[in-house]
Amino acid sequence: MSSTIPILLTGLCFLLLTPSCCSGSRILVVPVDGSHWINMEVILRELHSRGHEITVLRSAKSWYVPSQSPIYTSINVTMLEDESDKDYYNKMLQNVMECRKSLNFLRSFCQRRLLTSMLAKGHKILARAAATMLDDPVFMKKLKDAKFDLMLTDPGLTIGVLLGSYLKLPMVFNVRWINTGESHFTIAPSPVSYIPVQGTELQDRMDFPERTKNVLHYLFSLVEQHFIINAAYSDLLQRHFPPGTDLLSLEYAADIWLVRADFVFEFPRPTMPNVVYIGGFQCKEARPLPAELEAFMQSSGEHGVVVMSLGTFVSALPPDVTEAIAAAFAELPQKVVWRFVGEKPSSLGNNTLLVKWLPQNDILGHPKTRAFVAHGGTNGMYESIYHGVPVVGLPLLFDQFDNLHRLKVRGAAQTVEVNSVTKEDFLEALKDILDTPSYRSNIQRLSKLHHDRPMSPMDTAIFWIEYVIRNKGAAHLQAAGFSLPWYSYFCLDVALLITAVIGAFVWVSVLVCQILCCRRFRRKMKAE
Amino acid sequence: MSSTIPILLTGLCFLLLTPSCCSGSRILVVPVDGSHWINMEVILRELHSRGHEITVLRSAKSWYVPSQSPIYTSINVTMLEDESDKDYYNKMLQNVMECRKSLNFLRSFCQRRLLTSMLAKGHKILARAAATMLDDPVFMKKLKDAKFDLMLTDPGLTIGVLLGSYLKLPMVFNVRWINTGESHFTIAPSPVSYIPVQGTELQDRMDFPERTKNVLHYLFSLVEQHFIINAAYSDLLQRHFPPGTDLLSLEYAADIWLVRADFVFEFPRPTMPNVVYIGGFQCKEARPLPAELEAFMQSSGEHGVVVMSLGTFVSALPPDVTEAIAAAFAELPQKVVWRFVGEKPSSLGNNTLLVKWLPQNDILGHPKTRAFVAHGGTNGMYESIYHGVPVVGLPLLFDQFDNLHRLKVRGAAQTVEVNSVTKEDFLEALKDILDTPSYRSNIQRLSKLHHDRPMSPMDTAIFWIEYVIRNKGAAHLQAAGFSLPWYSYFCLDVALLITAVIGAFVWVSVLVCQILCCRRFRRKMKAE
Repeated sequence: MSSTIPILLTGLCFLLLTPSCCSGSRILVVPVDGSHWINMEVILRELHSRGHEITVLRSAKSWYVPSQSPIYTSINVTMLEDESDKDYYNKMLQNVMECRKSLNFLRSFCQRRLLTSMLAKGHKILARAAATMLDDPVFMKKLKDAKFDLMLTDPGLTIGVLLGSYLKLPMVFNVRWINTGESHFTIAPSPVSYIPVQGTELQDRMDFPERTKNVLHYLFSLVEQHFIINAAYSDLLQRHFPPGTDLLSLEYAADIWLVRADFVFEFPRPTMPNVVYIGGFQCKEARPLPAELEAFMQSSGEHGVVVMSLGTFVSALPPDVTEAIAAAFAELPQKVVWRFVGEKPSSLGNNTLLVKWLPQNDILGHPKTRAFVAHGGTNGMYESIYHGVPVVGLPLLFDQFDNLHRLKVRGAAQTVEVNSVTKEDFLEALKDILDTPSYRSNIQRLSKLHHDRPMSPMDTAIFWIEYVIRNKGAAHLQAAGFSLPWYSYFCLDVALLITAVIGAFVWVSVLVCQILCCRRFRRKMKAE
Repeated sequence: MSSTIPILLTGLCFLLLTPSCCSGSRILVVPVDGSHWINMEVILRELHSRGHEITVLRSAKSWYVPSQSPIYTSINVTMLEDESDKDYYNKMLQNVMECRKSLNFLRSFCQRRLLTSMLAKGHKILARAAATMLDDPVFMKKLKDAKFDLMLTDPGLTIGVLLGSYLKLPMVFNVRWINTGESHFTIAPSPVSYIPVQGTELQDRMDFPERTKNVLHYLFSLVEQHFIINAAYSDLLQRHFPPGTDLLSLEYAADIWLVRADFVFEFPRPTMPNVVYIGGFQCKEARPLPAELEAFMQSSGEHGVVVMSLGTFVSALPPDVTEAIAAAFAELPQKVVWRFVGEKPSSLGNNTLLVKWLPQNDILGHPKTRAFVAHGGTNGMYESIYHGVPVVGLPLLFDQFDNLHRLKVRGAAQTVEVNSVTKEDFLEALKDILDTPSYRSNIQRLSKLHHDRPMSPMDTAIFWIEYVIRNKGAAHLQAAGFSLPWYSYFCLDVALLITAVIGAFVWVSVLVCQILCCRRFRRKMKAE
């Protein structure tokens, strides 16, 4: 399946087969900035090529989303980026590194506390940003008059969900996560006994202490969802939505969830019929590298090349860590391509090429590539699976710990702790990955399974987006349970009734027995 | 989407795209007899055309499964059919008709009691039949030596599950139901608050009494599964499988469940990643009718034709009911084609043609067909959705009540009770379906949604069967929760620990308070 012919054929078949009724539809897009934008843009390109008109809401201070684009029209609005800065993540990183020094069991709770405080701050900003739009009748009229056919949004941030719901648009989510409790609240009922809560670094097979940790995280996520996230929007929702609306109920109402996951990577979990998995949809066959880079790759000979990139977090490592990494690289027989910004490490070896940017997908698909040193961002993980390259992980923030844990459990990765890594640790992990054949064979098995699907994830995504446009929603795929109050959802009212009936039956039985016994006793007494 | 071009293209694309690595694989098939065989045979034809070698286990007394076939080799074994007869269903029908006279709330419990006694008898026979095979070393050696690549079975009956597990074959289920509790035990965690248990005639939106009914049915199904179904196999499993194996654990181990359902018909429900929905996969574009039948259809003019067929239950109706139906038909301006076996009703009108057999799929797809009078078997329901024909239902047994209820809830069917139907009731239902445009528009909306999918359900089925052969299973799609003991699955052990810790904390706090209070009190006393 590694040749391009099947992919071309899939594309051709998809074009031939899909009803073209909704070409030229108007799609309103509210993306999440940063690495999430990469996942949105690739879909927008495809939608544009199929003749749809796209309007993107972005912040004037956006980090990644260009204001000018041949594929969409943009409108500047207030977003998260207006009140936060990229440096925020560096501060967050320092705090997470502190957490990583705690005991194993406590570490994830420390990180969750940080995440909760970040969410509290972020959702307050988002609620204010959404309010500036919803409270502005001129702006809202402009959006209404545009008669959009669809809201396509990444619900990682909530503005798209709020606007889409307010405008009563059919809604498709392009989503990696929405908040810490997403899987358990919105995607499907998810038993905590085998579905690890985000941020726990657990797998689907847990022992008793691990299940306890998972349950505690789940309870925290409930509190977080209801008292921090939902609470941030209560005023706004009260002003602009019917009584009783909360953020979760708006998220439940999405027609289709395009979830950026695949079960060669994620642990199997229940799913509602309106959830479609498109993990790895942004991956592509490798294109030829620039001549200079290709020459460097070829110069590695039989040993091959190690590729290192931390994506958005390219400049996140402290100098002592980059020194240790550079020194470890210097001892490898392999050559190294390292995406690096900052002061050149003094211990850098001759075998290591520093580059400010690299064509990550193309270099991972190069036959000389032997290992990928990565921070564990979702995009990079799917690219390593797609191209079958084992990983040495340096997780820094968010879901990166969980992501790398997934590959590690499957024998396709090793991880090192950034806050305590030494040259020796890093070299050991690298050599393990490079010299033990099982890492390569494991990730190539995952790669084979990842490619073995009835339809490419991109075609799947496009099909379901156009499906929602064609059918003006997908209400018949949404679970009815979401509209129930919690005590009815868990049938506690029925349990109470059944208990009461059984209780009454037992009570009456005991009473009858007592009366009968008393009578017999009295008779006996009389007889005596 | 009603032209044949997209279907031909889908087939072509599927042939072009699917890896052909597993053509020529050896597939062992254990089908369920009766109408379920129709669903298996259609898949076997497709597998045969793709070069697979098929071996079917059948009873020498099979009702539907031919011993000679160009597409498979058959082996005669002892099956359910050897100890039961078709007349059994007629007796069962009489009992169900009695149940239908009960109050609405009690009716389904009466039917469940009948079903439970049928299951108890059936599973005892099946366990005996499976024992004759597993206890026969020559037969089992023959199966082992054949080196099958896959067990394809309908787990409605259990012999395929037992043999496939014993032979350690990758296993694909082609399944409509397995037992009364299937959805709640095996497919995914299914909250009883919005997922109706089979046989309840409930929908996904339930009020309090309905939820109570659903919970009671669920509790009955638990008892049924554990004390009747599982118990029937305990001796057999003890003899031939590792300790602790029960029937459910064997069913959990299936690699892929091809479930004959589609969410335009079923209510949305959670699903595990190894469940693939192929509802309606046996439906086809209508082919031209035989000349005589075509002439009859055309003679109906603008009024069109009503089609009646009860499938396997063609001769199940008592004479007074057939008289009432014939009399009602006689009053219609439409013409009627009625698949009928038995004595011709005296009230039969000139507009009604009785036939012993009819090409159901082709006649339902005929442009003159206006309504379908059916018993509510799954195949017929999907054909009516596929061709967009509204239904008048005469449910008789099993899931037929539930099936018709699903179409009724969606405004695409009317039902009448067979045990109390009069000419007037039936005529009223017929006229309602024929004269109220919403029934037709509703089922045509369902039909449009049913056709609007990224891949035909047959291609989907074939893809996943060959996927399991290619990859020697699909363990990475199976939920880890199935292997947990029930108290761990529900995290009751963790809940106990958390309660104990909180309890201990409260107890210590109270104790400390008491001690402090006592001290203060004593000091006060001393001071006084």
